[in-house]
Amino acid sequence: MIETDIELLKGIANQLRIHSIEATTAAGSGHPTSCCSAADLAAALFFGHMRYDPKNPHFYNNDRFILSKGHAAPLLYAVWAENGFVPVADLLKLRTFTSDLEGHPTPRLAFADVATGSLGQGLGGGVGMALVARQDKLDYNTYVLLGDGEIAEGSVWEAANLAGIYKLNNLIAIVDANRLGQSQATAFGHDINVYRDRFKAFGWRVEEIDGHDIEEIIEVLGGVGLDDKPLAIVAKTYKGAGVSFLQDKDGWHGKPLNKEECAKAVAELQPSAKSGIGVPIAAPSQLPAPNLAAPASYPPISYKLGDQVATREAYGTALVRIGEADPRIVAMDGDTKNSTYSEKFFKRFPDRFTECFIAEQNLVAVAVGFGTRGHVPFASTFATFFTRAADQIRVAGISQANLKLAGSHVGISIGEDGPSQMALEDIALMRAIAGSAVLYPAEAGATEKLVEQMAQHKGICFLRTSRPKTPVIYGNDEQFPIGGAKVLREGDKATVVGAGVTLFEALKAADQLKSEGISITVVDAYSVKPLGKKEILAAAQKTNNVVITVEDHYPEGGLGDAVAGELSSEGVRVHKLAVNGIPRSGHASELMAAFGIDAAAIVKKVKSL
Amino acid sequence: MIETDIELLKGIANQLRIHSIEATTAAGSGHPTSCCSAADLAAALFFGHMRYDPKNPHFYNNDRFILSKGHAAPLLYAVWAENGFVPVADLLKLRTFTSDLEGHPTPRLAFADVATGSLGQGLGGGVGMALVARQDKLDYNTYVLLGDGEIAEGSVWEAANLAGIYKLNNLIAIVDANRLGQSQATAFGHDINVYRDRFKAFGWRVEEIDGHDIEEIIEVLGGVGLDDKPLAIVAKTYKGAGVSFLQDKDGWHGKPLNKEECAKAVAELQPSAKSGIGVPIAAPSQLPAPNLAAPASYPPISYKLGDQVATREAYGTALVRIGEADPRIVAMDGDTKNSTYSEKFFKRFPDRFTECFIAEQNLVAVAVGFGTRGHVPFASTFATFFTRAADQIRVAGISQANLKLAGSHVGISIGEDGPSQMALEDIALMRAIAGSAVLYPAEAGATEKLVEQMAQHKGICFLRTSRPKTPVIYGNDEQFPIGGAKVLREGDKATVVGAGVTLFEALKAADQLKSEGISITVVDAYSVKPLGKKEILAAAQKTNNVVITVEDHYPEGGLGDAVAGELSSEGVRVHKLAVNGIPRSGHASELMAAFGIDAAAIVKKVKSL
Repeated sequence: MIETDIELLKGIANQLRIHSIEATTAAGSGHPTSCCSAADLAAALFFGHMRYDPKNPHFYNNDRFILSKGHAAPLLYAVWAENGFVPVADLLKLRTFTSDLEGHPTPRLAFADVATGSLGQGLGGGVGMALVARQDKLDYNTYVLLGDGEIAEGSVWEAANLAGIYKLNNLIAIVDANRLGQSQATAFGHDINVYRDRFKAFGWRVEEIDGHDIEEIIEVLGGVGLDDKPLAIVAKTYKGAGVSFLQDKDGWHGKPLNKEECAKAVAELQPSAKSGIGVPIAAPSQLPAPNLAAPASYPPISYKLGDQVATREAYGTALVRIGEADPRIVAMDGDTKNSTYSEKFFKRFPDRFTECFIAEQNLVAVAVGFGTRGHVPFASTFATFFTRAADQIRVAGISQANLKLAGSHVGISIGEDGPSQMALEDIALMRAIAGSAVLYPAEAGATEKLVEQMAQHKGICFLRTSRPKTPVIYGNDEQFPIGGAKVLREGDKATVVGAGVTLFEALKAADQLKSEGISITVVDAYSVKPLGKKEILAAAQKTNNVVITVEDHYPEGGLGDAVAGELSSEGVRVHKLAVNGIPRSGHASELMAAFGIDAAAIVKKVKSL
Repeated sequence: MIETDIELLKGIANQLRIHSIEATTAAGSGHPTSCCSAADLAAALFFGHMRYDPKNPHFYNNDRFILSKGHAAPLLYAVWAENGFVPVADLLKLRTFTSDLEGHPTPRLAFADVATGSLGQGLGGGVGMALVARQDKLDYNTYVLLGDGEIAEGSVWEAANLAGIYKLNNLIAIVDANRLGQSQATAFGHDINVYRDRFKAFGWRVEEIDGHDIEEIIEVLGGVGLDDKPLAIVAKTYKGAGVSFLQDKDGWHGKPLNKEECAKAVAELQPSAKSGIGVPIAAPSQLPAPNLAAPASYPPISYKLGDQVATREAYGTALVRIGEADPRIVAMDGDTKNSTYSEKFFKRFPDRFTECFIAEQNLVAVAVGFGTRGHVPFASTFATFFTRAADQIRVAGISQANLKLAGSHVGISIGEDGPSQMALEDIALMRAIAGSAVLYPAEAGATEKLVEQMAQHKGICFLRTSRPKTPVIYGNDEQFPIGGAKVLREGDKATVVGAGVTLFEALKAADQLKSEGISITVVDAYSVKPLGKKEILAAAQKTNNVVITVEDHYPEGGLGDAVAGELSSEGVRVHKLAVNGIPRSGHASELMAAFGIDAAAIVKKVKSL
């Protein structure tokens, strides 16, 4: 719609309400009242304000829209039916197995950049997309629709903080303050001044409006970008708005109407409903598309065997090296860049780096946002602090996001800082992310090659790097495909599978055992998921199916479980060495001995078998 | 110290600085400058304001202190040396393997209620402790010292929000705004108005002070409790304060002084340093101790075989039942109480229930806080939303916290809501928590008995409950010890291990196979960690070591990996059936068939072996 026709928008809003109610009644589940509260906002945004091509939701300069309150999915689907993209008849297939119109939106749908439904995550993704627009010199805006209940999530304030710091005036948060949560009213009800004061304190410009007054909505939307701050529109709304027996009533969260109620509601709405089909939508401007082409190859590496380099440092070196050749690469960190070595990238490409400060949920959300727009985001912090963003990473899995995480300082080998800084659960967490790859290099060359693999692999990859320096043991031409493993020693008594720092313990153990006439196989499981199953199985079969895994991680869900889970069905017997208790501060070598993952522990285990 | 002697406090602050610097120099690592910025605050709090028994840090009515900026641990240790609790000589053992004075504080130390070091977590625990004081009618205050960098963490604002809502005027946040983060300056530097405005907007009273002016510190501390709001003291400080060549200088984060620098710093500080040894500390008031005695037993249950009851509902019923007998039990939820059934407890015991709204990190932190004060906290939400609090749970593991988590709506068996609401990674996450128990009942009676076990078991327990109703299959006297398993059918071809909804699929498969002349063993692995290893191994050995696991969870880190990880070394061959892809909306039965975890999938697998 080019010229604003308020009556038409009001009518479209009611049509969106009808669709939302009918679809949830057909499905027998869903959140119709949460759709009704936001229907006027959605109608104004999609039919009276936003600039996008409804035939091509992926167009690079379309305004973006994130439905952070994902349970209002039927409203979003109704919008994309009324703008002609989704067949209207499909709306009644909501939540059925064969339809992509799921209970909450996922990127199976072209118009959903990120999965939502785990509340409080939308704004962080929006911050990422708004940063992309700035970096790529595009003029699209990013609109995020939030519920009032989800504003209790800290992730919202991490995102609000960063948007304020970077003055993202191309980011608009719209709060649908409908007063009612799932199990009771929200803490602040319709006292929307509270939300105003908070966004203001976080560096935003704020407009308070009646979320059912289309004229007022259109008016404040007209002010987008007129300031150097992000804009929060706090809209007072009513859950179930537009339907007399639903509006502002308790007990209607997540509850569809029965058929009679549905008919009654539609009868109320129908007289003033208007179709959006054919209504002209403002077109996005045709700015040049950013160059985001993947290169065919990367510059070579040049390490010398025996060089002592920490894998975390090799990560930073690799990022600069591939960043020179690959314009898609961007990086972000959470105030640990001098420890993760992402600082190297920051110094070389300051415009392609985002400091996210100490806010790991938002660090990941921002990276996901970059990934949705064709960039290849590498986010880094201490590995154990990615646990803070476990839910964002889980949802990124559902989104099938293109996300690269590099976690440093893993395991007890960090030593003196103590257990709060040691990642000992990260492999378990990252393996359980849908479609993820979990990579754990032992030395610099492997790290560099795996960073290349990460950049070229579409999906979520987690790189686990270590604090201590380790010797370079592979030649510069060695390849490290995701899903492979390297056999470094061959023996007949047992196959010892290590990764990262434990690989060197395994090699030490092999040397010691050799001097005693015992030969073992040593495997570098640099790819924990997908596991180098073929290589490890072949090795195991040559050592009477005896395998010992050794890992700087708790015993649950890590390398040992990965090997046992994949190979026990083949008759392989897996004996796990892992960090067998809550660690403490101390020298790395003391800790590795005390918690049973050093060369001595391996020797002892081999001899016991 | 009863009467405030400002000069003495200034001297003690410098003594704390000396200890912090000397200890980190001896250790060769640590954060001396982060100690120096907070030394005046710590001296004023511990020697001029707080009421506590320095000989008995656990006394129930002591003022509590949480060092949220855990990297300033040496400062905390210095305090407890100067008040006589820790031998001064021990300070130089900082970060060594045999000392409990670790790099970051843990509850191995009597004066640390919770582990800190993963930033932004202290305030949530403090909210829990402040709520306990109110519930137990005690007059202790809870003081939380935060860094300015960590205020970017959303968890801080989740905690601030709840403290504001519940008007916790016995909670005091002190922000040590020293301007410098780890890798660069904080976003706001010394513009501490930003922090003032934010805490105000979150419902706090705020005082801005010079954090090196002892007189001013003591004065604002005198106002604690004089309002109905929590109090935030925003203190402008300098990193490295008190030492000319450290103060406000870049490049000194996490860096100890060398011996010469140390001597130089001590020479600057020594002339004005004063010992705290023997300084009188204000005593806590002697209010009655709360009754927090564990009962010897709980009232019985009375289900009928075949009753259809969802395990999530049995959880709520159990909580009320044991709550009647056990005054320690408290519960909290994140606006899902009508779905998790914790609402039953809320309705029966409103004073022992805390609504935490949609803020799962803080939900867990609050529960941990209750656990530190002798209560037994049961926190509930959808299981997958506990992933939001993964880092809080990880740190609770380090704290060896007494924490009970009940996660509902697990797996694809929730059906139509879709993947964002389905817990499919929660077992992996919870197994990897140090010292955790992971419990997964299939039916109501087992759920009730496991809730009893959780209450009596000291440590972190996770209960995984399901959305669908399932039939009662156990008698009311059946016992479910943590670490056990139940053999429900005995056969000879394979042992099928299920839990939760898949147990019933296994039973169906057993019936169908029996009709075809194939007999299988079916095991209920209601205790995933510790696993009922003995029972499962015995069963496996009677079925030629063939085991099939079937779980409503992703293949990684769940039941299958648990069984394989524990039993493959015994020669057991484990074949995993698990949710083999990113699920979608649909009927539960459709999803269980499509993703390979229903009876038909089990039958097919048995036949293939």
